[in-house]
Amino acid sequence: MHIKSLVAETEKSKAPSFSFEYFPPKTAQGVQNLYDRMDRMNNFGPKFIDITWGAGGGIAELTCEMVVQAQAVYGLETCMHLTCTDMGLEKVNDALQKAYKAGCTNILALRGDPPRDQESWTAADGNFQYARDLVKHIRDTYGDHFDIGVAGYPEGCDDNKDEESLLDHLKEKVDMGAGFIVTQMFYDADNFIRWVGKVRERGITIPILPGIMPIATVPPDWMAKLEPVKNDDVAVREIGKTLVAELCKKLLANGIHHLHFYTMNLAQATRMVLDELNWTPSAENPLKQALPWKQSKGFGRRDEDVRPIFWRNRNKSYVIRTQDWDEFPNGRWGDSRSPAFGELDAYGIGLTGTNEQNRKKWGEPASIQDIANTFVQYLEKKLETLPWSESGLAAEADPIKDDLVALNKRGLLTINSQPAVDGAKSNHPVHGWGPSNGYVYQKAYLELLMPPYLLEEMISRLDDFPNLTYYAVTKNGQLKSNAPSDGPNAVTWGVFPGKEIVQPTIVESVSFLAWRDEAFRLGVDWAHCFDANTPSRALIEGIMNEWYLVNIVNNDFRENSTIFGFLEGLEVKDLAVPVTLTA
Amino acid sequence: MHIKSLVAETEKSKAPSFSFEYFPPKTAQGVQNLYDRMDRMNNFGPKFIDITWGAGGGIAELTCEMVVQAQAVYGLETCMHLTCTDMGLEKVNDALQKAYKAGCTNILALRGDPPRDQESWTAADGNFQYARDLVKHIRDTYGDHFDIGVAGYPEGCDDNKDEESLLDHLKEKVDMGAGFIVTQMFYDADNFIRWVGKVRERGITIPILPGIMPIATVPPDWMAKLEPVKNDDVAVREIGKTLVAELCKKLLANGIHHLHFYTMNLAQATRMVLDELNWTPSAENPLKQALPWKQSKGFGRRDEDVRPIFWRNRNKSYVIRTQDWDEFPNGRWGDSRSPAFGELDAYGIGLTGTNEQNRKKWGEPASIQDIANTFVQYLEKKLETLPWSESGLAAEADPIKDDLVALNKRGLLTINSQPAVDGAKSNHPVHGWGPSNGYVYQKAYLELLMPPYLLEEMISRLDDFPNLTYYAVTKNGQLKSNAPSDGPNAVTWGVFPGKEIVQPTIVESVSFLAWRDEAFRLGVDWAHCFDANTPSRALIEGIMNEWYLVNIVNNDFRENSTIFGFLEGLEVKDLAVPVTLTA
Repeated sequence: MHIKSLVAETEKSKAPSFSFEYFPPKTAQGVQNLYDRMDRMNNFGPKFIDITWGAGGGIAELTCEMVVQAQAVYGLETCMHLTCTDMGLEKVNDALQKAYKAGCTNILALRGDPPRDQESWTAADGNFQYARDLVKHIRDTYGDHFDIGVAGYPEGCDDNKDEESLLDHLKEKVDMGAGFIVTQMFYDADNFIRWVGKVRERGITIPILPGIMPIATVPPDWMAKLEPVKNDDVAVREIGKTLVAELCKKLLANGIHHLHFYTMNLAQATRMVLDELNWTPSAENPLKQALPWKQSKGFGRRDEDVRPIFWRNRNKSYVIRTQDWDEFPNGRWGDSRSPAFGELDAYGIGLTGTNEQNRKKWGEPASIQDIANTFVQYLEKKLETLPWSESGLAAEADPIKDDLVALNKRGLLTINSQPAVDGAKSNHPVHGWGPSNGYVYQKAYLELLMPPYLLEEMISRLDDFPNLTYYAVTKNGQLKSNAPSDGPNAVTWGVFPGKEIVQPTIVESVSFLAWRDEAFRLGVDWAHCFDANTPSRALIEGIMNEWYLVNIVNNDFRENSTIFGFLEGLEVKDLAVPVTLTA
Repeated sequence: MHIKSLVAETEKSKAPSFSFEYFPPKTAQGVQNLYDRMDRMNNFGPKFIDITWGAGGGIAELTCEMVVQAQAVYGLETCMHLTCTDMGLEKVNDALQKAYKAGCTNILALRGDPPRDQESWTAADGNFQYARDLVKHIRDTYGDHFDIGVAGYPEGCDDNKDEESLLDHLKEKVDMGAGFIVTQMFYDADNFIRWVGKVRERGITIPILPGIMPIATVPPDWMAKLEPVKNDDVAVREIGKTLVAELCKKLLANGIHHLHFYTMNLAQATRMVLDELNWTPSAENPLKQALPWKQSKGFGRRDEDVRPIFWRNRNKSYVIRTQDWDEFPNGRWGDSRSPAFGELDAYGIGLTGTNEQNRKKWGEPASIQDIANTFVQYLEKKLETLPWSESGLAAEADPIKDDLVALNKRGLLTINSQPAVDGAKSNHPVHGWGPSNGYVYQKAYLELLMPPYLLEEMISRLDDFPNLTYYAVTKNGQLKSNAPSDGPNAVTWGVFPGKEIVQPTIVESVSFLAWRDEAFRLGVDWAHCFDANTPSRALIEGIMNEWYLVNIVNNDFRENSTIFGFLEGLEVKDLAVPVTLTA
């Protein structure tokens, strides 16, 4: 979506509106950490993020790569910076094409800082000299595909302090087709407001997004307030956040609707300002989500509105394994389930973390009880991840947590679940998603690993449980099911004013078989965190080779207890007996 | 669906299974009456119907035409009879092609009776002589498309009383590819059971459907029982039904699962037998419907699973106006709404009945109040039809009936409605549809005619009713709406075990505009039942020319009252003032 449209929506809705800027880190680990942080910070509710241009060398590549990841995998509306500095036409076109393919529709076109070894800036032969040239080129090449942002300098820029001349440049950039203005950071609200007046006097009507730096270099009159605590980082942040929040409030009171935060790749300072503004999501003011899972903004992927439940805790690998699909399943899934899921050896699908890290996290189990204890720790939120879950247990699991713990204590290892929801309001703080004034529903779902003799006992009970459907499969693909058809069973849906029923989460056989590959692979990866001929390796490999991966849906979406009643009394044999190594 | 599959399902489910045979009537009015009767008798729940072959002349054409209508318009699974009598290869192929195009998948292949002027039967040159030749030809030409039935003669046939020879012929027909046997009528159950034994001894394993004639010529031992009442038709029927029901019970007790009734185009005698068997649908044993509206069995139409609500009381015209669609909307409607709706001048779309009949039915209104009274009579079930409704008010309207009456008494003419349903069980006797163990839902819906000044007042109230969406349109196409998009609003849906959410009824703008043409046309047709320069004509034409057709959906499917509260106090001006003719 174009940033000018996002800002226009904001003006209408009067809801908080802000965006986050990140820059490409220098190390691979830094990049991974930043993705995680961007993902978490997305929960604050930014309307978009932007990623600065890593001028020169491999960092430029990294900007493009980060835009792809942010759009496709993390589902963030992303604006890509692009600078003239050191960039020939070919490089510019290459970057634009990558952004286009990533589904990115916003570019911030900048002249860029001069390379360090040059005092002032002249373009290389045949390269773009001014941002306005870059704006014109993007507009000429891509028409209206991209919304184009340009920089505004309310306090002058390093090599030009002449306000009128800078306003002339701004007007030129706007005339070339810019759709919004992002300003440099500032702390002087009054000056900014005065400057906005001058911009408007020039007949420039596009949105102006003030750049806010949560705390960094501070204006002299703020220093006095910070002086008494200058050696106390926590206190500086505390006072700083109040000062920045006051700045923000002043801007908002003066007709600014959207704030652009320079996060410096840090979460806390920005979060504190948002808290101070009362803008972070809360039970009273939950983050609005269009669907119960985070949508990808990838190219051709924006209309995706249904996913199998199996990847609920593995969003990223689902996106990677389906990235080559021409069309995403929607509404009716029959035809669209045919595209093959991507291979398991693609980057990012296996277990992450080093063997040592994983042994530390999940222990060195010698018995099924040891593994069960690790699962219980996860359910009790003492562990953030499991091999099958990239993030902590969702709040919605609370009503069934005790039942899940009990199952695991009996050796039935639960790797995914959702509770029943019978028509919660769409703005419900835990279960809600989708437009206002709707109702959302879920069928209770449980996915677990169990040994064959317990599966047999489970299946023998089915006659007494007409509302339950299940699929069970072994690592080598032996599938059992009582589902009435191979087709999809909608397990999450919503009813909204003036719309069809939205059915974003399903259970069905084709994707379950694809998920099986991944689920058993994750288990095998975990086993391989331990040396050959260790009890832990033998134990986990044994489970992967012999047990079933089972999913159960309670089709009566009005209650949670049936599934647990169905499994009552089932218990793994020799729970606490340590595995013994043969030969 | 093939009859052999229907019978196989029956054996599994142990549910009552029967079929009805009809013959082509001699007059056009007779045909129309028979359609109506077939439609009503379909509510008894036959698994299929069959239509006999009108050998010779235009009646053969009529058989084909009736098969098309029964399949496509009335949604009846139909078996077409086809005889050798007087039929050349070309005629046979023509009839088969028509059946194929009608979506018919069952043929009963018969030799047929000899023409009246011939004592015994010889085929014309090059024509089929025996039913087995016809069976072979159908199988050779159409492969497995058609299931083919053949006749069985447990009591011999007119020109051959030799049982062994008839069994030889039967075996030949089966060997040529017949899939089921329908027997001539009989009343001697013991003989039939003996005969079935002989059929099975020949190695014939396909289903045998006994032909049951509710009452006609009766065996001598029945005569004694009927003798005392032979001049009392009602009493004959009463005793007859008991005798026939006993016959049926005996057959069922002897391994027969499906009964084939020769209805003689009459409803009552068959119904009485079904009643006696306790097979007619009741509140405890409701007729199962796959969707809330009757599906068409037309060619390429069996997968249709969504329709606009507007034609709810005009099934037939919807089928006619969409019969050229290559694809029927399903699940996601965006693409499929594009095919144009057929023209209004096609046969069967305008108002039926003669002008005189219609004036008699709906009166000669001189004021809006007079019209309103006619509508109220319909709501109170004193009238079977209205110009916009082909059949009586559905039982589901009961909970909102008083509100509808009140609206009409204030001059707001309601032409369609459904009450809210918040998760009724799918086997609910009034609201239920679809597979067992599901839940069905409806949003309250109301469609009515109202003058512009009331529409204006209605629209001004909308801010206080965030859950309501409406469309309003005049005869010449002026459209108003507050719907969030042109796309479909699902107003009926169902949640079933192991399936996606089924959404069979929608409201959306494209089809509403097509319905508008028809709705105003029906009103104009009604006006034209009155001579020019009569008050009734002027009154109804005035309404058609000036008023709006309005539909309202209450998106909160948990309650009915909001729509009526929304319209509270709205009343047409000069309700009782008779229209005056100008010049």
